[in-house]
Amino acid sequence: MGNNISKFAPKSGFPDLPVIQGLKLSTCNANISKGKKLDLLLIEATSNSTICGLFTKSETCSHAVDWSRQNLKRVQKQHEPIALVVNSGNANVFTGLAGKTTVRETILSVAKHINTSQENIFVASTGVIGEHLDYKKITTQIQTLTKNAKSNAFFNAAEAIMTTDTYPKGFHTKLTLEKTNVKINGIAKGSGMIAPNMGTMLVFIFSDIAIEKNILQQIMADCSDKTFNCITVDSDTSTSDSLFVITTGTAKMQKITSLQDPRAIKFQKYLYKTMFELAHLVIKDGEGITKFIEVTIKGAKTYENAVKIGKSIAESPLVKTAFAGEDPNWGRVVMAIGKSGIKINKEQISICFGDNIVAVNGSISENYNEKNVANYMKNDSLNISVDLGLGKEKASIYTCDLTHGYISINADYRS
Amino acid sequence: MGNNISKFAPKSGFPDLPVIQGLKLSTCNANISKGKKLDLLLIEATSNSTICGLFTKSETCSHAVDWSRQNLKRVQKQHEPIALVVNSGNANVFTGLAGKTTVRETILSVAKHINTSQENIFVASTGVIGEHLDYKKITTQIQTLTKNAKSNAFFNAAEAIMTTDTYPKGFHTKLTLEKTNVKINGIAKGSGMIAPNMGTMLVFIFSDIAIEKNILQQIMADCSDKTFNCITVDSDTSTSDSLFVITTGTAKMQKITSLQDPRAIKFQKYLYKTMFELAHLVIKDGEGITKFIEVTIKGAKTYENAVKIGKSIAESPLVKTAFAGEDPNWGRVVMAIGKSGIKINKEQISICFGDNIVAVNGSISENYNEKNVANYMKNDSLNISVDLGLGKEKASIYTCDLTHGYISINADYRS
Repeated sequence: MGNNISKFAPKSGFPDLPVIQGLKLSTCNANISKGKKLDLLLIEATSNSTICGLFTKSETCSHAVDWSRQNLKRVQKQHEPIALVVNSGNANVFTGLAGKTTVRETILSVAKHINTSQENIFVASTGVIGEHLDYKKITTQIQTLTKNAKSNAFFNAAEAIMTTDTYPKGFHTKLTLEKTNVKINGIAKGSGMIAPNMGTMLVFIFSDIAIEKNILQQIMADCSDKTFNCITVDSDTSTSDSLFVITTGTAKMQKITSLQDPRAIKFQKYLYKTMFELAHLVIKDGEGITKFIEVTIKGAKTYENAVKIGKSIAESPLVKTAFAGEDPNWGRVVMAIGKSGIKINKEQISICFGDNIVAVNGSISENYNEKNVANYMKNDSLNISVDLGLGKEKASIYTCDLTHGYISINADYRS
Repeated sequence: MGNNISKFAPKSGFPDLPVIQGLKLSTCNANISKGKKLDLLLIEATSNSTICGLFTKSETCSHAVDWSRQNLKRVQKQHEPIALVVNSGNANVFTGLAGKTTVRETILSVAKHINTSQENIFVASTGVIGEHLDYKKITTQIQTLTKNAKSNAFFNAAEAIMTTDTYPKGFHTKLTLEKTNVKINGIAKGSGMIAPNMGTMLVFIFSDIAIEKNILQQIMADCSDKTFNCITVDSDTSTSDSLFVITTGTAKMQKITSLQDPRAIKFQKYLYKTMFELAHLVIKDGEGITKFIEVTIKGAKTYENAVKIGKSIAESPLVKTAFAGEDPNWGRVVMAIGKSGIKINKEQISICFGDNIVAVNGSISENYNEKNVANYMKNDSLNISVDLGLGKEKASIYTCDLTHGYISINADYRS
């Protein structure tokens, strides 16, 4: 396994996430992962908290996703706490009845020790697919976890959810809503099998804002579309992708009950920023990454077209290997635009690598200077932009290159 | 570049393709490719020949594809010969007006030296995208090529169309139609950027059968759907995919004018076999290949669903790297089934690796023996089969693994 820390890991290390009143976290090694890493996380949020979630669209999703998706549709009990149990090392996917039992026993154990109803308990799992996850490994730890819960254990929490990640991922921001300070904390994990189709591998975001559940759900979905749904490491959508936002409502403010409330609009801006930064932290830990790549599609007829063409480029093995080799092979970008299935006019396409105009109106630019562009390719972060010349919509997709490192990590993940 | 000959290359070398009366081929080095390889091919078919074609669906297809697709819609002049000019080393894609000029000048030159009309002249190009292809490199060779044309130059022809291919690809078969012997010869090229969406990179098939154009076109399209459209090396669809079938009609037989003619049905069977073998030769030269992989999806509701799920598995980087590492990581197959977008019931899925049943009804098989399956993974050729348990349709997709070799070849293709 490629345990070298990604060169894109933040130089400043894991940020100092502040306490969010009403929220406690607790972690341990439950012997689920190989090695002695933290692999079990319990999150408790005070009564009157709100939880929203988005999950993978995979048809072979995990038992945890099955439970959490269904449970979110039930009405949570306002006056009881909310709990979220997360394990790494085993995804509890394709494990049949035993997998369902693991989820059920986990829920029952948490309900007993936290004294809350099943409707308020959620789960998430990440790791190997197809291996049975013995529920006792989890249930025997719940009591201790509840006892040891702390309000400032974000770093441990971020570590406990890691699998092939080379560094823990966290971000925080704060905003002022009519003189009330509101905090947003987020942690994430993900490195391979990243082509989220609803959330990314595992992302947990916490805030003390007071906001109604349906408003929060809409804001979250909107932010996710333009952040987690716009990143791709390897085009492989996980069975476990889960994004949860938990708000404790402990900030001293009147509850937000409308999307038109200016406070909702401001909060959305900051939540978007949090998701954007977490999404980037995931890509920057992409398996085998040596280049961080932004693909921007402009001049599209619709936003969806821009995303589809951007992903076609960002997921093309030939584009990704060219970037790994620092080869300014813009012809492969042309190929990837062509295969996306979106109708375009090839004679209106222009392509830039950074500030270098490489192609204009369907042909190589007169000012193209191979040496300059080859030099540009030596940068750690690359910007590829394509103007389709058809409309006004644009989208940015974020990805990494495809390297020998990716092959090495994935040709022996389980062994 | 990875110039080692693929271990899957036929041990017997290039087959001895028989002469097809009325067909001549001629090749030369026109200084289009790097190195001194043959890179220009001229094919001439006698008057009364028939030509059909299928092309990439790429929106950024080559100028050659643009011309040939349009020209096939015109009525060919029966009493004049048919010509096909093919070059390797430059795909003539995204080359604007200059690219169109190259095609036009090529056509004019061939029309002059072969004395046939433009409607009867077709072109195909393969190689680097985005670089101008100087038409003089081609037009100055046409006269010599016509002079040197021979009826038995299939081996040279197969060599002249190679790019990153490690061996020339050919196949022939014959059949008897009411005591008349009919021959089918085929040559192909392709190694990377292989996820055909209509034909594969370049495939040329020749026969002396007498058959009407519209009948031939339908038979060809049907065979292509289940052969070239079912292979994938890297999910990257080429800008140049072209499949041509040329029939000279020189076999002593009455022309086939109906799909219901038993001779048409028999011919289709043999044409299918030719395309199937050529498609396999392409995969067996997949860039960096160490494993030849057949993915079979059974129990699907529709054939299209089976193909889509099969491709989702065959194109998954995580599945392909696991196979490269001889890791029986069937969990990644589960992931790839889930991300395909096709509705399934995960609790009805069974998975086999060769004869080893690894999962039954949505969970690991009781008889699963990791050691046996790990041993199976050491084979050069692997069979992965998935039973969805939903219906009666099935499809097989053919692919190769994703290896360090693929990265090495593609991280410095142009340099």
